[in-house]
Amino acid sequence: MENNKLTIIKIGGNVIDNPEVLTRFLRDFSKLETQKILVHGGGKVATRLAGKLGVESMMIEGRRVTNEEMLDVAIMTYAGLCNKKIVAQLQGLHTSAIGLTGADGNSIVSQRRENSVYDYGFVGDITEINSKWIKFLLDTDTIPVFCAITHDQKGQLLNTNADSIAQSLAVGLSSLYKTTLIYCFEKKGVLQNVEDENSVIETINYTSYQSLKKKNIIHSGMIPKLDNCFEALKQGVKNIIISNPEIINNPNHPHTSITL
Amino acid sequence: MENNKLTIIKIGGNVIDNPEVLTRFLRDFSKLETQKILVHGGGKVATRLAGKLGVESMMIEGRRVTNEEMLDVAIMTYAGLCNKKIVAQLQGLHTSAIGLTGADGNSIVSQRRENSVYDYGFVGDITEINSKWIKFLLDTDTIPVFCAITHDQKGQLLNTNADSIAQSLAVGLSSLYKTTLIYCFEKKGVLQNVEDENSVIETINYTSYQSLKKKNIIHSGMIPKLDNCFEALKQGVKNIIISNPEIINNPNHPHTSITL
Repeated sequence: MENNKLTIIKIGGNVIDNPEVLTRFLRDFSKLETQKILVHGGGKVATRLAGKLGVESMMIEGRRVTNEEMLDVAIMTYAGLCNKKIVAQLQGLHTSAIGLTGADGNSIVSQRRENSVYDYGFVGDITEINSKWIKFLLDTDTIPVFCAITHDQKGQLLNTNADSIAQSLAVGLSSLYKTTLIYCFEKKGVLQNVEDENSVIETINYTSYQSLKKKNIIHSGMIPKLDNCFEALKQGVKNIIISNPEIINNPNHPHTSITL
Repeated sequence: MENNKLTIIKIGGNVIDNPEVLTRFLRDFSKLETQKILVHGGGKVATRLAGKLGVESMMIEGRRVTNEEMLDVAIMTYAGLCNKKIVAQLQGLHTSAIGLTGADGNSIVSQRRENSVYDYGFVGDITEINSKWIKFLLDTDTIPVFCAITHDQKGQLLNTNADSIAQSLAVGLSSLYKTTLIYCFEKKGVLQNVEDENSVIETINYTSYQSLKKKNIIHSGMIPKLDNCFEALKQGVKNIIISNPEIINNPNHPHTSITL
């Protein structure tokens, strides 16, 4: 184990929602020979539970509003069902893990999002990472598994974007570890041509990013994602990779590497 | 803070189901000047969620059968909603806490209950406590908050009686700490006369217990509870108290003390 290297992996709905893919991913993840942290959202599990309970998903400009009932659904599915099943599976693979929200050990503090125009409800923007305590867990060979819930230090849990959690952890821990951040999604990387699965752009640096935006090859939802990546690199993260889960056990698997 | 003293408190439905009582209890708990651990069940929250989702509670001889759907409900409510809200509230009281199932940090291992006559489903009987790791957490001034879920080390989460979790933790940690175990329920203690709330028996030792059973003052559900208490005392727990939540901030509050 290389103790000064840390890999933070964020998985999304394409992994969480497919038990076979999740099991395979966790097997690969458990074999990864660096210090590591897993970050996950809730995929469609929360939406399904909300549907069964008759809790309606309000959307404002494509963003979900988290009212009190929806927050409860998020806590039950992200922090309960998804998180604890991942932890139990990792234990079954002889990898000691611990499931966390930002409230646990005061590990991730956020503040409720304020917006003069819309109220997104119980949604948090991260303000602080308790790196020292997270390092303590890693030092006991316990792998932190973070779900997409944080807290405001005043007793309130807050729904928080899992990509942002992964990014903030990577930045917060980059003074203690050589940190690699991997975003696992359904494609092999950022595509030159969205219709061609194999047109993965190998490397994007800040200059090529500007040009890709101009040519409209990178657009809409990918822009804030990549803006965040460059911000994280500027703040000390060594390496950011975007690919699908197969990248974990095969570094030669196609992927996009983001560099400054 | 007295670092060699540990207080383990188990709270039940009478606390969990009443937000005001829970808030008052957590305030008192946060002020407790020993090392401490909280153990909770899910009260009626799981039953209510199961009802909303149309998951039926099968009972065999007064014991709930935990089928796969009911286990999911237990994980969502115990490990999700109840556990994380308690942790967030404690953080709001400047007490750093961490919410745990037995799977987290491999802290409590159990095996699925085997019974040649009935199958109680995904129910676990505790086989092992990871005292060393729990001590690590306490040493970082992080208060463990355990819910009533454990795991079998093979990837399966198991529903586990919260009284048993509290008892096993007390026994497992008694070689490292002078351990007091407090069961908080709705009455002030074990009553001489069930109709008289103030007839609390101050002390029960093993000899008086035999006599109280003979006189039928202690009967039915209280017998396995007290049997477990005497077992825990024999295995090194210093002190066991049965009372309601008011005992936490007032040692002069009526209570039953169990001694060998």
